[in-house]
Amino acid sequence: MKILNGKELARKMRKELKEKISKSPEKPGLAVVLVGEDPSSKLYVNMKERDCKKIGITSKKIKLEENTTQERLLDIIRQLNEDDTIHGILVQLPLPSHIDESVVIDTISSKKDVDGFHPMNLGKMLQGRDCFLPATPAGIIDLLKENNIMIEGKEVAVVGRSNIVGKPVASLLTAENGTVTVCHSRTKNIETILKRSDIIIMAIGRPNFLKGNMIKENVVIVDVGTTYIDDKLYGDVDFESVKEKASWISPVPGGVGPMTRAALLKNTYKAFLKRENR
Amino acid sequence: MKILNGKELARKMRKELKEKISKSPEKPGLAVVLVGEDPSSKLYVNMKERDCKKIGITSKKIKLEENTTQERLLDIIRQLNEDDTIHGILVQLPLPSHIDESVVIDTISSKKDVDGFHPMNLGKMLQGRDCFLPATPAGIIDLLKENNIMIEGKEVAVVGRSNIVGKPVASLLTAENGTVTVCHSRTKNIETILKRSDIIIMAIGRPNFLKGNMIKENVVIVDVGTTYIDDKLYGDVDFESVKEKASWISPVPGGVGPMTRAALLKNTYKAFLKRENR
Repeated sequence: MKILNGKELARKMRKELKEKISKSPEKPGLAVVLVGEDPSSKLYVNMKERDCKKIGITSKKIKLEENTTQERLLDIIRQLNEDDTIHGILVQLPLPSHIDESVVIDTISSKKDVDGFHPMNLGKMLQGRDCFLPATPAGIIDLLKENNIMIEGKEVAVVGRSNIVGKPVASLLTAENGTVTVCHSRTKNIETILKRSDIIIMAIGRPNFLKGNMIKENVVIVDVGTTYIDDKLYGDVDFESVKEKASWISPVPGGVGPMTRAALLKNTYKAFLKRENR
Repeated sequence: MKILNGKELARKMRKELKEKISKSPEKPGLAVVLVGEDPSSKLYVNMKERDCKKIGITSKKIKLEENTTQERLLDIIRQLNEDDTIHGILVQLPLPSHIDESVVIDTISSKKDVDGFHPMNLGKMLQGRDCFLPATPAGIIDLLKENNIMIEGKEVAVVGRSNIVGKPVASLLTAENGTVTVCHSRTKNIETILKRSDIIIMAIGRPNFLKGNMIKENVVIVDVGTTYIDDKLYGDVDFESVKEKASWISPVPGGVGPMTRAALLKNTYKAFLKRENR
């Protein structure tokens, strides 16, 4: 069994980006908008800012009170859309319940939507056109391809159908010529489907759900689960029980998480390169 | 075996729309743009205009020369976007090769995109949000649901991954709680997948591809294929060889085709109802 080492690959990707950015007199700028005091959101925003700093992206943090109105947030986004020093805009989710996340995402210019959550980018992704890919799905594809794992012709199970992971990663894996089945809470024969799959993407947020007796030999497993229990992070895969049968596994932590953060940096750099075309 | 009678259902849908429209003093307006002299395109445009007339939608045909420049076409679309009497805009595809179809579709206001081809609408569809659904996929879902065919928990094979049929219908069937596998030219074990499926959507344009020995008993088959050979229309399903085993089949012609046209009318009426929100 080999490890899909996202931490190491993300480091390599950051190094490459840093080199490219260092050669440019102008620097990419990322605006990170944080509303409220959610501790996990704060942690994620800090990690993203640290990543930016390491590779030469200028990050601008905009911290807003929990009770910020939606209209005020939209105004700030509209200003950032017009700001030539800002190439990417990221609004940390979840937002307080009085704010409609869809309206906020739709207001971000699709040309600065480095999270890849804007419907315009998702629609272009589905059509196979150039766009900002959502970070986690893009990170998963990079993790597989950089480890020379063949997707073409393989049976792939995507377990989970969220808007930010399951649905878009299924679309990208189909574009890579995989034969993809999307499984979810209403799927009746999940064990049959898992057993026949060559590649399994677990993205349901149920700690240790996938066990050794549910998979076939030599399967490739990507674990997107991140559930905290008593401050310890659990994936969707029972690592100990699958490790004898799987050919590759992405660990939690150190697998998909770092790749997601690296994908955000890649998107920001891409937005920077395309800045003239806006 | 029962027939998924699209012709009859489409007639019922048109009748319902006609009644609703007759009660409104203002009428929905659809602009149909045809570039060049392609005989099939002319035929389709005429059919759509006839459908509109039948139910009280005002259709405005805009016929342009084969050598129309892209910029001229975009100008016309921009005018239609601004025209308050036009609620839906349809540009008949394919366009002449000197015109970039994506640029043309992107220029149509997503609020008048009654074909559901705009990336903004596809992205919203993927997110499960209100939008204009692409006509053929929407027609397929209507055809299944109106015949009380259960999708939830069923294994569904979508064969073909085009932007206008395979990919969006897979997304809609997943939203209906089906467990969907998308098959395509690089799928290795297509016969195994077909054999295990409860519902099969055939959308590859290969006449009579699906035979009786490739399916299980009581499968539901939707045939989206439309290939003309010597002026006769063929679907992707060998009707004679599957009819003893399938529980439901959509015939060609008279299945998905009329439903696609009805879905366009539904979208146009929906755009009309939403005209105040533009």
